[in-house]
Amino acid sequence: MRASRFFISTLKEAPSDAEIVSHQLMMRAGMIKRLGSGIYTYMPTGLRIIRKVEGIIREEMNRAGAIELLMPLVQPAELWQETGRWDKMGPELMRVKDRHGREFAIQPTSEEVITDVVRSEIKSYRQLPVNFYHIQTKFRDERRPRFGLMRGREFTMKDAYSFDRDVAGMQASYQNMFDAYTRVFNRFGLKFRAVAADNGAIGGTGSHEFHVIASTGEDALVYCKESDYAANMEAAEALAIGERLAAAQALTKTSTPGKTKCEAVAELLNIPLQQHVKSIALTVENEGKKTYFLLLLRADHELNEIKVSKVAGLKDFRFSTEAEIQDVYGTVPGYLGPIGAKLPLTVVADRTVANMADFVCGANELDFHFTGANWGRDVAEPIVADLRNVVEGDASPDGKGVLAIERGIEVGHVFQLGTAYSEAMGATFLDENGKPAPLQMGCYGIGVTRILGAAIEQNFDDKGIVWPDAIAPFELVLCPMGMDRSEMVKEQVEKLYAELMAAGVDVIVDDRGLRPGAMFSDWELIGVPHRVVIGERGLKEGNLEYQGRRDDAATSVPVDGMVAFIKGKLGK
Amino acid sequence: MRASRFFISTLKEAPSDAEIVSHQLMMRAGMIKRLGSGIYTYMPTGLRIIRKVEGIIREEMNRAGAIELLMPLVQPAELWQETGRWDKMGPELMRVKDRHGREFAIQPTSEEVITDVVRSEIKSYRQLPVNFYHIQTKFRDERRPRFGLMRGREFTMKDAYSFDRDVAGMQASYQNMFDAYTRVFNRFGLKFRAVAADNGAIGGTGSHEFHVIASTGEDALVYCKESDYAANMEAAEALAIGERLAAAQALTKTSTPGKTKCEAVAELLNIPLQQHVKSIALTVENEGKKTYFLLLLRADHELNEIKVSKVAGLKDFRFSTEAEIQDVYGTVPGYLGPIGAKLPLTVVADRTVANMADFVCGANELDFHFTGANWGRDVAEPIVADLRNVVEGDASPDGKGVLAIERGIEVGHVFQLGTAYSEAMGATFLDENGKPAPLQMGCYGIGVTRILGAAIEQNFDDKGIVWPDAIAPFELVLCPMGMDRSEMVKEQVEKLYAELMAAGVDVIVDDRGLRPGAMFSDWELIGVPHRVVIGERGLKEGNLEYQGRRDDAATSVPVDGMVAFIKGKLGK
Repeated sequence: MRASRFFISTLKEAPSDAEIVSHQLMMRAGMIKRLGSGIYTYMPTGLRIIRKVEGIIREEMNRAGAIELLMPLVQPAELWQETGRWDKMGPELMRVKDRHGREFAIQPTSEEVITDVVRSEIKSYRQLPVNFYHIQTKFRDERRPRFGLMRGREFTMKDAYSFDRDVAGMQASYQNMFDAYTRVFNRFGLKFRAVAADNGAIGGTGSHEFHVIASTGEDALVYCKESDYAANMEAAEALAIGERLAAAQALTKTSTPGKTKCEAVAELLNIPLQQHVKSIALTVENEGKKTYFLLLLRADHELNEIKVSKVAGLKDFRFSTEAEIQDVYGTVPGYLGPIGAKLPLTVVADRTVANMADFVCGANELDFHFTGANWGRDVAEPIVADLRNVVEGDASPDGKGVLAIERGIEVGHVFQLGTAYSEAMGATFLDENGKPAPLQMGCYGIGVTRILGAAIEQNFDDKGIVWPDAIAPFELVLCPMGMDRSEMVKEQVEKLYAELMAAGVDVIVDDRGLRPGAMFSDWELIGVPHRVVIGERGLKEGNLEYQGRRDDAATSVPVDGMVAFIKGKLGK
Repeated sequence: MRASRFFISTLKEAPSDAEIVSHQLMMRAGMIKRLGSGIYTYMPTGLRIIRKVEGIIREEMNRAGAIELLMPLVQPAELWQETGRWDKMGPELMRVKDRHGREFAIQPTSEEVITDVVRSEIKSYRQLPVNFYHIQTKFRDERRPRFGLMRGREFTMKDAYSFDRDVAGMQASYQNMFDAYTRVFNRFGLKFRAVAADNGAIGGTGSHEFHVIASTGEDALVYCKESDYAANMEAAEALAIGERLAAAQALTKTSTPGKTKCEAVAELLNIPLQQHVKSIALTVENEGKKTYFLLLLRADHELNEIKVSKVAGLKDFRFSTEAEIQDVYGTVPGYLGPIGAKLPLTVVADRTVANMADFVCGANELDFHFTGANWGRDVAEPIVADLRNVVEGDASPDGKGVLAIERGIEVGHVFQLGTAYSEAMGATFLDENGKPAPLQMGCYGIGVTRILGAAIEQNFDDKGIVWPDAIAPFELVLCPMGMDRSEMVKEQVEKLYAELMAAGVDVIVDDRGLRPGAMFSDWELIGVPHRVVIGERGLKEGNLEYQGRRDDAATSVPVDGMVAFIKGKLGK
């Protein structure tokens, strides 16, 4: 490519609505252009990156035996009604009526459509397993679109759907996709981590997320350096800390006026925070009847609401109101505790709390706490559950070391769906005995356009973006010095350009005639990973200047060896 | 590709709603699957064809210097309001509201968005010319979607937009795109014709349509075998036939009871139809005031309404009502004529009618016609205009021969838009004198998915589709006979498959284990253009059987020469 025939448009400043670095850099590098809230035109440089990302995904999906098709954007409401998602999905589902008043969804994902395809196409176990995918535009009407491509409304996703005859088959298809995703992210050249995830609203029996590691990531990833345990914070199991000691103190009601926070109580009483218990009051309403739960966490731990919702009876919990707390505990928030409530309630203690002895908790009385509280003696043994987020240094649930935490950006998700969709939509096949059985389904997504944002959050410096070779808009830029003045430079540039193209290098020659500073800063901002400068002075000595985007200084390379040198750098 | 890892699903019968052959064959061949009215999933075989079509278009657009980007599907109403198209476009424009009640269009085309991009990106004449394109899903809420991909609602289009500093530049960009389109359609291997077209609603100063020639096509294409003149029927100029002779007959009122059609009058009076004039009454209403026009055509000619609308004063014509005809002419339709109307009116004669003498026309009296009518003597000289469709054998407007007519399917359209959009949206650049001037724009579309339907309408037989090599889902199919029984066959298939892949042939091996008849009929239906049969009997003699999709019989080819033979067939 010649820059004079391409469209490069960089900015000194990012627009003020670009809050995060990837959004700022993509705007400044002219990769995207805002059309509306969460809606972007992919400019030529940005589209080149998207195409490379798509190309790698496509190759690995095909290698894994998945078959590409293309499902429509505009999908009849009737299909979404069959699975109940027409009602379940809120305003995120963009709905539209045609000229006849018929309702449609603009697809956020395609489980319904692929299940509709499959229920008419798959008749026999002989046709299984099968895995269909497409790379297609999606729309989700996010409440607050932001962060450029990270949380856009219109975006590109690769979504694949596997169909199997039984659970073992589904699990094999799932593993096959897991492995394909691992190859995809390795080929991108990004640091990533696959973590076990909660299945969430999509249902099913198992799932993993693929995260690009970045300190700016929204998600906390839990992993064990000594083993391959990894889960996102929602799903990471927290083991009990310590073992329960025998009671050594008497239960003592202590005055703690105005101290509603554990930290303040700890300071007042000079008792370590790890000896305090935090009480959280919940209410569950069922057909007008209210039941009450008190959750107990060690004071320095954080509640994990996903885990709470999995405790028996707490699927539809909410936090109690102040009025309810007054009724149940006879006091105000800040002084609650498991001892001496006014109304019946169920106490659920986090595993670590259940192991505590001589702990501090609220006394269900304004301005008072108990010290020296003990299970079995002062209060009945609680229900025990995993209620908290893990913290760095917790024991790994696989018993093989301790947990660490890093930040990530979710860019892929694989799900075992089981028969949720196939049963709702009547997608069955005839098994070996000629009996109809529901298809076992998996679904697998990669956020294509989001990859761009995530890759930048992981790879940038104060000059701009630093693309990995595999997804860079160009692998190499040739920067001629004074191409218009020097025949020697011009000839060498054309020769090198032709040789590099013949060698399969994705090269752009900057023939715009800019001064060196402006030229270099453009390509550093855009993030092309390799640069060769062709100048008369170097040429007279038979040399060109190579500089990698992360290199501090340039390297002199003989003219004749440059193509081989570049091929070496690119591993070609 | 191995058929066992691909998804092939053919049908014996097409669904009853498939009215035309391309729709029937695509459904039977499993290339598309209906999701809703005018909305199709592109199944794996269909998607392969689409990708090949897109690939050729992309290569030729890039070769022509156009730059690819990707504009959003969901586009803010505000942009469409700037050009007035939000109101001008009827229900074909699919409109949608987001969660905040803001209005959007699902793009049927992207003039507004690209003009918005360009008005902020293009500042100087130095950045011109520039041509941006994308290949993107479109939606048009057709009143009556039908014919499969030929008139769908969701479809894929390549649309390009050129921007120039002046009209000469725009014309050069237009010619550049015209040439690129010619290369594209040549590479598809389709018989096509570019014809001059009316600009229609999109406005501007010139346009051509590209049509795939097919006897089932909706459009009539006019061309001259002796020259390069070509236009669609709407735009093809009709010259006058004959020269006006001196009057030889007296004007005579003749009784023609019940004969309201020219053909019936001609038969009754025994006067050739070519001597009769057909009268068509029009009304134009302007601010409540009506004016009347009478159009005159030779009786065997057809009215061309596009041409009528270009006659001065007739832009907003309508056909007169029976009541108006009674008021103006004092009679009923069937007996109208230019002589002796009751109210003032303007007579507009087609060029051929203006050259007639001693003609027959209605007498403005029930059951009477005139014979021997003559211009200047019996009625004032009319306004003369081109009002009719051309017919086979008409003189070519370039004076170089006679016109022929064939049927075509429109698959591409190029337009000179001028400044219509740039002025409406304030898209200006600074010229060499530093003065702002509106950008001169062109737009260029190819109906990607429609190409599939058009190609089939041109290339099919009673067995199925016959794809040209360049856009076939596979170039070649290998059909092994008894692969599961014969080691010899199996080995040869694998060897040949590997060699063909290495030679860059897009080959599929049918390893499904079907009996020969079922296997052959699948591939004939799908339309793979080349087939090689590998059987034990032939192998023992060192031969394989080759058959082209259009060949009547197979050809024996030595095993060792097959790869070269196929490469020769494919021109590789």
